[in-house]
Amino acid sequence: MLEVGYYNGEIGPLNELKCSVLDRAVYFGDGCYDATMVVNGKIVFLEDHLDRFYNSLNLLSIPFQYSREELTTILYSLVKEFDTNNQGMIYWQASRGTGLRQHNFPKPEETKPNLFAYIVAKDTASKDKTMSAITVEDERFLFCNIKTLNLIPNVLAAQKALEAGADEVIFHRGQEVTEMAHSNISFIIKGHFVYHPFDNKILPGIAVKHLIKNAKKLGIPTEERIVTLEEALAADELINSSSGAICQRIVRVDDKPVGKKDSETFTKLQDAVFEEFYGSVN
Amino acid sequence: MLEVGYYNGEIGPLNELKCSVLDRAVYFGDGCYDATMVVNGKIVFLEDHLDRFYNSLNLLSIPFQYSREELTTILYSLVKEFDTNNQGMIYWQASRGTGLRQHNFPKPEETKPNLFAYIVAKDTASKDKTMSAITVEDERFLFCNIKTLNLIPNVLAAQKALEAGADEVIFHRGQEVTEMAHSNISFIIKGHFVYHPFDNKILPGIAVKHLIKNAKKLGIPTEERIVTLEEALAADELINSSSGAICQRIVRVDDKPVGKKDSETFTKLQDAVFEEFYGSVN
Repeated sequence: MLEVGYYNGEIGPLNELKCSVLDRAVYFGDGCYDATMVVNGKIVFLEDHLDRFYNSLNLLSIPFQYSREELTTILYSLVKEFDTNNQGMIYWQASRGTGLRQHNFPKPEETKPNLFAYIVAKDTASKDKTMSAITVEDERFLFCNIKTLNLIPNVLAAQKALEAGADEVIFHRGQEVTEMAHSNISFIIKGHFVYHPFDNKILPGIAVKHLIKNAKKLGIPTEERIVTLEEALAADELINSSSGAICQRIVRVDDKPVGKKDSETFTKLQDAVFEEFYGSVN
Repeated sequence: MLEVGYYNGEIGPLNELKCSVLDRAVYFGDGCYDATMVVNGKIVFLEDHLDRFYNSLNLLSIPFQYSREELTTILYSLVKEFDTNNQGMIYWQASRGTGLRQHNFPKPEETKPNLFAYIVAKDTASKDKTMSAITVEDERFLFCNIKTLNLIPNVLAAQKALEAGADEVIFHRGQEVTEMAHSNISFIIKGHFVYHPFDNKILPGIAVKHLIKNAKKLGIPTEERIVTLEEALAADELINSSSGAICQRIVRVDDKPVGKKDSETFTKLQDAVFEEFYGSVN
C-alpha cells in the first residue's frame, strides 16, 4: 500500500480508517505526535524520535500504554505494509483517550490513549532545493517544546506563506526569531553555527540536534542563543531543518534575498548531515 | 436518546459515531465550536451563539457550507431526538475538512468542512452554587477570541485545579487576569461591574455580554478594563460566567476566601440574568 493507516490495532488504507468522534483529539486536540522519514524500509533516527515522543507524552501526562519496544514493533508492522520501493513519511500520534467531552483527564479505568499512525509516500530531501519564507509574529502558546496536536497558528501561518508565494514562515516574538511553521531555523553567522535555546518557545528539532553534532565534529563553533530578526536577515546563511528537509538553504525572506554568504561552511555542514542521514539507512 | 450525536448528516447514539482519521480536527485541531444549554426543547440564546460561531469560522477562514438557517435546522433536528424532559448541553464544531495531513488549507474542490454536533444531559445552573479556583499563569496563544479546538492548555489547567481540589482556574498573564479554563471571570468592585476587554486574550463570553446588558439595565456602572491579580483577589465579588453556569460566585482562590463583600449588587445582577435566561425558554 502507498498510504497505510493504523488506529488502535486496525491496519488499512488510510482514507478508509475511522475513529470515534469522542477521541479527545477530535474536540480538544488533546495529544501529541512525532514523524520521520522511512527510507529503504528503515525508520530514520527512530530512537531520537521515540525520545522526543515519550517526552511529549510525559509533559502532557498522557499515560501511554506501549513501551518503546512495543511501539517500535507497531510502527514496523506499518512499514511492512508500505511499498518499500518508495520513500515515505511515517507519522504517529497518541491522544489522551475517548470519552464524553470534559476538560479534566479521564480516569484510567475509563479509557486508554488512542494510537493513530500512518505512512505516506514522500521524496527525500534534495541538497539543491532552496527555500523562501515570510516573517510572521509568533502568537503561539508557550508549550511549543511539546509536539502537540494544537496547530492552528501553524496552519494559518503556512497558508499565509502559500498565499504570499513563499514556502515557509519565520516566526518571531517581537525581535526574537523562534522557529518556522513546521520546521526549525538556524544560522551561520561569522563562521559559527547559531541556534535558538531549547526552551518552551520552539520544538526540540531532531534535525537541528544532528546539525549541532556535525558542526562540533567539523570544528564549527556552535552558539545556543537568541537571534534577532534584524540579525537573522543579515546572517551569512539561514538554514531550514526538519526530518523531511534535513538541511536546506533559505534564500529569500519577505521577497528579499538573504544568506548565501558562506557557501563553504554551509556546504560542509549540509554534506555531513546528509551523509549521516543516508548512512543510517544503508 | 440521552446522548445524541451528529456527524456530516448522520444522526445516532453519540458513542457509536465515527469520523475519518483524516478529519483535520484529529491531527491539527483545525476547527472551532460553540455550545449552549437546551431547556424545554429550546436552544438558549442561539442567535448569540451563531453570531460567535460564524465569527470564529470567519477568523479561521473556514468556508462553512451551511447558512445560519440551515445550521439552525440541523441543530433542532438533534433536539428532536433528545429526551426533552431533560435539560442538556448542545455542542457543535466545524473542522476545515478531510484529507492527507498538510498545513496549507485544502482546496475547496477537495473537501468541505466537517460538522460534528451532539446533545448530552446537563443540569441547569443553580444560583446557590459557589465556586473555588486556583491561579495559573496564562501561557495560551493569542487566538483566545476564537473558540477553537486547540485546548490543551485549558485541559492541563483544569486538571491542575481538580488535583488541587478546586473547580476552576483563574488564568493571568503576569498581573493581568484574563479568563478561566472554560468560562469567563468578571468582578464587582466598588459597586461597578468590571470585565476584561474583548480582545484576543479572552473568549467573548455570551454570559458576560448578558451580565453587561443587565448591569446597564439595573443602573450598575460597567467598566471594560484590565484587572490585576491583586485587585481580583481583593474584589468585592468575583463572578464566574458561562453558558452553563450563567452567573456564579467565586468564593475561594488558592484556598483563601475571596469576594462575598457586595451581596446586594451580586444578587440583583444574578437575579436579572437568571430571569432573562429562563424567560427566553418559557
